[in-house]
Amino acid sequence: MAAPSKPTRIGLVGLAVMGQNLALNIAEKGFPISVYNRTTSKVDETVERAQKEGNLPLFGFHDPESFVHSIQKPRVVIMLVKAGAPVDQTIKTLSGYLEKGDCIIDGGNEWYENTERREKAMAELGILYLGMGVSGGEEGARNGPSMMPGGSFKAFKYIEDIVLKVAAQVPDSGPCVTYIGKGGSGNFVKMVHNGIEYGDMQLIAEAYDVLKSVGKLSNEELHSVFAEWNKGELQSFLIEITADIFGIKDEGYLVDKVLDKTGMKGTGKWTVQQAADLSVAAPTIAASLDARFLSGLKEERVEAAKVFKSGGFGDILTDQEVDKKKLIDDVRQALYASKICSYAQGMNLIRAKSNEKGWDLKLGELARIWKGGCIIRAIFLDRIKNAYDRNPDLANLLVDPEFAKEIVERQSAWRRIVCLAINSGISTPGMSSSLAYFDTYRRERLPANLIQAQRDYFGAHTYERIDMEGSFHTEWFKIAKQSKI
Amino acid sequence: MAAPSKPTRIGLVGLAVMGQNLALNIAEKGFPISVYNRTTSKVDETVERAQKEGNLPLFGFHDPESFVHSIQKPRVVIMLVKAGAPVDQTIKTLSGYLEKGDCIIDGGNEWYENTERREKAMAELGILYLGMGVSGGEEGARNGPSMMPGGSFKAFKYIEDIVLKVAAQVPDSGPCVTYIGKGGSGNFVKMVHNGIEYGDMQLIAEAYDVLKSVGKLSNEELHSVFAEWNKGELQSFLIEITADIFGIKDEGYLVDKVLDKTGMKGTGKWTVQQAADLSVAAPTIAASLDARFLSGLKEERVEAAKVFKSGGFGDILTDQEVDKKKLIDDVRQALYASKICSYAQGMNLIRAKSNEKGWDLKLGELARIWKGGCIIRAIFLDRIKNAYDRNPDLANLLVDPEFAKEIVERQSAWRRIVCLAINSGISTPGMSSSLAYFDTYRRERLPANLIQAQRDYFGAHTYERIDMEGSFHTEWFKIAKQSKI
Repeated sequence: MAAPSKPTRIGLVGLAVMGQNLALNIAEKGFPISVYNRTTSKVDETVERAQKEGNLPLFGFHDPESFVHSIQKPRVVIMLVKAGAPVDQTIKTLSGYLEKGDCIIDGGNEWYENTERREKAMAELGILYLGMGVSGGEEGARNGPSMMPGGSFKAFKYIEDIVLKVAAQVPDSGPCVTYIGKGGSGNFVKMVHNGIEYGDMQLIAEAYDVLKSVGKLSNEELHSVFAEWNKGELQSFLIEITADIFGIKDEGYLVDKVLDKTGMKGTGKWTVQQAADLSVAAPTIAASLDARFLSGLKEERVEAAKVFKSGGFGDILTDQEVDKKKLIDDVRQALYASKICSYAQGMNLIRAKSNEKGWDLKLGELARIWKGGCIIRAIFLDRIKNAYDRNPDLANLLVDPEFAKEIVERQSAWRRIVCLAINSGISTPGMSSSLAYFDTYRRERLPANLIQAQRDYFGAHTYERIDMEGSFHTEWFKIAKQSKI
Repeated sequence: MAAPSKPTRIGLVGLAVMGQNLALNIAEKGFPISVYNRTTSKVDETVERAQKEGNLPLFGFHDPESFVHSIQKPRVVIMLVKAGAPVDQTIKTLSGYLEKGDCIIDGGNEWYENTERREKAMAELGILYLGMGVSGGEEGARNGPSMMPGGSFKAFKYIEDIVLKVAAQVPDSGPCVTYIGKGGSGNFVKMVHNGIEYGDMQLIAEAYDVLKSVGKLSNEELHSVFAEWNKGELQSFLIEITADIFGIKDEGYLVDKVLDKTGMKGTGKWTVQQAADLSVAAPTIAASLDARFLSGLKEERVEAAKVFKSGGFGDILTDQEVDKKKLIDDVRQALYASKICSYAQGMNLIRAKSNEKGWDLKLGELARIWKGGCIIRAIFLDRIKNAYDRNPDLANLLVDPEFAKEIVERQSAWRRIVCLAINSGISTPGMSSSLAYFDTYRRERLPANLIQAQRDYFGAHTYERIDMEGSFHTEWFKIAKQSKI
């Protein structure tokens, strides 16, 4: 392999597809890069691609020592290896050759606390550390991802010129990267991004289900509907690829041949667990996770369907006449309104963590860097950015004047679709959780008074009152017993 | 204080109300008991109560050493102190005086992993350890709780005679206690019990909300409705106390004066986090947790209500004429069907953990010991026990023939109530999550195929097919691009 004539600007270790593509992207932007992988055939493969894709300044190494030494000081190495133990292993390998002032960047979907642990451990060796969420899949990594670096600010400054060029570029709002904040904030934000992505995908799947199962739309019609939606308020990467998917044939349509079992990799689960930990309601994201769990129980579902078919009802309960055009329009509105709720949950989760950790995260800035490159990129994120520009302390996206107006306009359609689904026996857990979230959040008086009374009744947990200050306890049982005599 | 003439049978440390009551209960059943508390006034208070409540054989101690030495060997000490650090502190104090073969029992709501850690640490000292969930609140502790001891089987045998008498006694099904299983299984089962309790309380609150807000029932009518429900399929402690609550006056009715903010203590949160960890959908329990979180945002809700009122709609959207009698009947059915789903989730969560940990838990036996003493005690638990008696490997309560039949009978009312709530702008997150759970679980074919296609499109995560074995990847983007040309 050709050796670099002078030290390279940066190194990258971990050459699965994401790593290869990000390395090629960096090289293409004019930053000479060294690459290394434990399985050396991946190194050769990457070098070959770099030559094919335009003689890019990418240099491969078969051992970690010469890899590290090929990089200019202070050295910067991006890792794109599997989260968890492989990251620790890679750090161990690298830190044997790195020097004080060098910097390690983890570009994987790592649990934020692991990043904080490693940042501390590296600091003791004088090595800087960043946890940098990278979104955009393989294609984004190659052509411009959204990047969420958090940790050492000094380390960020070392790579700022690189990431600004490597990130997706969005007209009027700039490169899709920013310094997120201290500690594990970059990983945390990426985790919630993925949780929001789960929500988006689930909501789209429900829209598909209602249109197909109740509206009887063909794949061809679905293709047109999603392509049309992609020109309006729903314009986004996920709507665009959904339109594409409905267009792809394979003796019939490929989408119909795909098994209805959804996989997952952990970030959605973490998002739901963190929401519970931080006392933030995130029911739409939780519903999307549950839907994946239930999708996995294919064999049980087939059996359950039999039980209930023999019990007198099939998959679809009613065969109502529907006005297709009206249905499509209603579903679009329900999807949009539900999406607002899902993003409100994700943003509030990020804020709650930011407050807990003192990260001082800027929610509007996060919306900005998600506008391009990443999986949830959408025109919609502009509205979120604007909402936080108008009011950085906005309690909830739902009460931003623009979003509130949009919801009010769409709420009738939203309620119609959820009820239509319920009456058809089609579940729309994401849409109905979103609606319940909205109707709970906008409610001045909830029935929670009863629950608090119950808690005081059986557990003496006390309650507050609406008519006076303080904490109260009532001997509910004694009073009730007396009145029964 | 009177010293025992011979060693006592058991000791109890931690004399807050639960601890006092459990100690009195044990003494009343004829087991001489030593008690100790760091704040010694609690000791004197308990001794005084023991005298007043019938000269019970209860002996108080002001220092841990004489407390421990007063107990017959092998010594058994129950702790009822706050979970977490106070438990560790108490163990440290006790273990200074305990000997090999003695036994410590934690009766609090402890995180199961803490119990497992302590069991191991104690084993090194030759001390046996049990984590024993105790449910029933203050009243249950005094008169018969449901108890869930897990950990050392040998330790359970030491106390078996005591707990069999101390536990709630249910005709035909016996004392509400059983050896749960190894390790932290007793704490885990109690945790899920509490999660189910959250679900029950939320579903009852939603029933209340629909009846009050849409049906315009008065507190007097609500009192009658719940009292009536308590005679039928919904008969349970929580329905009973709800009826009581609506009957209690305080210049008007007390329930209306209670602030609509619900507190919580952690077990509901853990349940939701464990469900995510174990890939078990538990949306009804999660919805009840989220409802508590949102109830806490009272000030935000008041503001949001203003925003949407000025946006054109109030708390209640429609003022539909409703047939009260029909409404009450529908709500009862919706509550019952939703409850089945919630218990199905909790039971499957316990089974998933049991499988993971090799605990070999008996779900039917858990339903049996919940029939009395605890907060979720209900006639309904008989049906669950019967379902698991019929088929211990039942995949889900929903497909038990009896439950399936009950759901089929109630599903129309269930759908009517959720839609009525939606059209009234009242959220019923628990009922609608339950319904979505049911409609997802009984669905042979979900729209999850689309999500898996999307994942393969942007992340090359591969997919399975319905028409052939194997794992597949498609170059969706390339094909779509070609077809667009």
